[in-house]
Amino acid sequence: MSRAHDIARRLAWIAVDWGSSNLRAWALDADGEVLASASRDKGMLSLTPADYEPTLLEAVGDWLPASGRMPVRVCGMAGARQGWREAAYLPVPTRLDGLGNGAVSPAVQDPRLRVALLPGLCQTADGAFDVMRGEETQLAGLVADQPGFSGLACLPGTHAKWARLENGTLERFTTFLSGELYRLLASQSVLRHSTGDDDLTTPGDRDAFLSAVREVNDAPRAFSARLFGLRAADLLDDRLPDGEARGARLAARLSGLVIGLELAGMGEALASTPITLIGNQTLCARYALALEALGHEAHRLDGEAAVLAGLGLANAALGT
Amino acid sequence: MSRAHDIARRLAWIAVDWGSSNLRAWALDADGEVLASASRDKGMLSLTPADYEPTLLEAVGDWLPASGRMPVRVCGMAGARQGWREAAYLPVPTRLDGLGNGAVSPAVQDPRLRVALLPGLCQTADGAFDVMRGEETQLAGLVADQPGFSGLACLPGTHAKWARLENGTLERFTTFLSGELYRLLASQSVLRHSTGDDDLTTPGDRDAFLSAVREVNDAPRAFSARLFGLRAADLLDDRLPDGEARGARLAARLSGLVIGLELAGMGEALASTPITLIGNQTLCARYALALEALGHEAHRLDGEAAVLAGLGLANAALGT
Repeated sequence: MSRAHDIARRLAWIAVDWGSSNLRAWALDADGEVLASASRDKGMLSLTPADYEPTLLEAVGDWLPASGRMPVRVCGMAGARQGWREAAYLPVPTRLDGLGNGAVSPAVQDPRLRVALLPGLCQTADGAFDVMRGEETQLAGLVADQPGFSGLACLPGTHAKWARLENGTLERFTTFLSGELYRLLASQSVLRHSTGDDDLTTPGDRDAFLSAVREVNDAPRAFSARLFGLRAADLLDDRLPDGEARGARLAARLSGLVIGLELAGMGEALASTPITLIGNQTLCARYALALEALGHEAHRLDGEAAVLAGLGLANAALGT
Repeated sequence: MSRAHDIARRLAWIAVDWGSSNLRAWALDADGEVLASASRDKGMLSLTPADYEPTLLEAVGDWLPASGRMPVRVCGMAGARQGWREAAYLPVPTRLDGLGNGAVSPAVQDPRLRVALLPGLCQTADGAFDVMRGEETQLAGLVADQPGFSGLACLPGTHAKWARLENGTLERFTTFLSGELYRLLASQSVLRHSTGDDDLTTPGDRDAFLSAVREVNDAPRAFSARLFGLRAADLLDDRLPDGEARGARLAARLSGLVIGLELAGMGEALASTPITLIGNQTLCARYALALEALGHEAHRLDGEAAVLAGLGLANAALGT
């Protein structure tokens, strides 16, 4: 029996995380076991509504059995207004096991597909406007993993999200521009002359990172001055290492300043443990270090496991 | 008598502000009257050391009398290590009427030129590393204008400088990345979808600007979250105007957040009046508005007048 045939025979549903620039898809059996996965570098920014179905078929077409309609559960920007079809934001507070309530089904031509696009979440209370689309499904994954979860969850990244959950309900959340801010400063500002690759591999780099986290946490108002101070230190500070080590040291410091400002922004809310970090290993490890330096313990949940669990929760709620 | 002949006859010295991307030059008579001015879009970033003399002659050659050696006083990046010839940073504290002490003369081929490159300033005390090159001459202009000046001076811009002067001596200074931060966020980040032209022409825009200044001053730690909040407000806030007015409103708010973070960074130091803003009218007016909203009065000095006065002070000290 061919592998494709085996997948088609056991396939129960398809999970898709479809963002601004790419899609990742997984074939799952009835027990939630991953049978296969696929990805494409095509997302909301490069697709018109008519492009979505062909792109999806390109990625998952081989998995589909000849007959029957296969549930495809999609989270992320495919459900944005500029995506495949809009799945309007659900307002918070929202029970994370109820995301399916806001799902919409785009029209499809292939009779084997039954697509549901999950909604994002929005927040308007007290002028604290905020939105997420994709991350809510990872947070649902946390609830699938730990039913009735209460606590703080953080999803580091380009637009880092911090969410307060109470007994499985997302109560409120805040987005920080940290990843984007770091990237712009390190690659486009005057600091690009001073910063290099930063992977926190040496104790010196880790110290520079953690000192910056603590400094900004103690005095967030100094953030903008400390940014230029990095450039000036590169020109004047004899204690910095030379060569590539210098760029790594200063990049570690920049990362600490940006993440430190984010943690300062969370303020006293961080005291309400437990904190769960959801995302890729490297970035979550960096956040865990920073949190630890401020006296906070963090648990971790792998980002891919979270999105699969969240889509699985929605799949179970949506039925067949 | 031709105009060129008249300039050559009266010319006493030439002032040059030579930055990263352009030069501005002025022909001055013995009384400091401006006889002519010129500019070129050539600066440190596009010139090798050998290019400086031809570029200077291209700009000011017509002014020079046939014989004699004409003093040319240059401030800015032409004196940087990557410039014409390095005029090493003077450490602060520094008397601003003594910048000529650190001037260097690059070798020139044309016997009519006697060039002095003024130094920049550096600060290393207590790890508060900082540098300036060009702005020190504008600050010297403030001292030329008000001998023995004591107080705070601010030079808004790409890398905004705040300097503490005591009786004509620059004691310490701080650079904020404000202008660059605004430009990157407004043109390269996710906020570019929400921000437009921002000239604070409507009362609504001014209110948005000032509210943002106050918010960040009250809670600088929220800066990063408020950045993303701008994008979310664009998606969710019904109270925002439509069309171009919407982009202007959000750009005004972004400007207020960035300038507010800078003013928060100065903190209690702002209470030590007087504050003098040095620079172009539009930007100084914006800073004056922001300072006023926080209860601080600001005087203003035109940036071009300041650089000319500062170069004049150095010219007088350097002699002929």
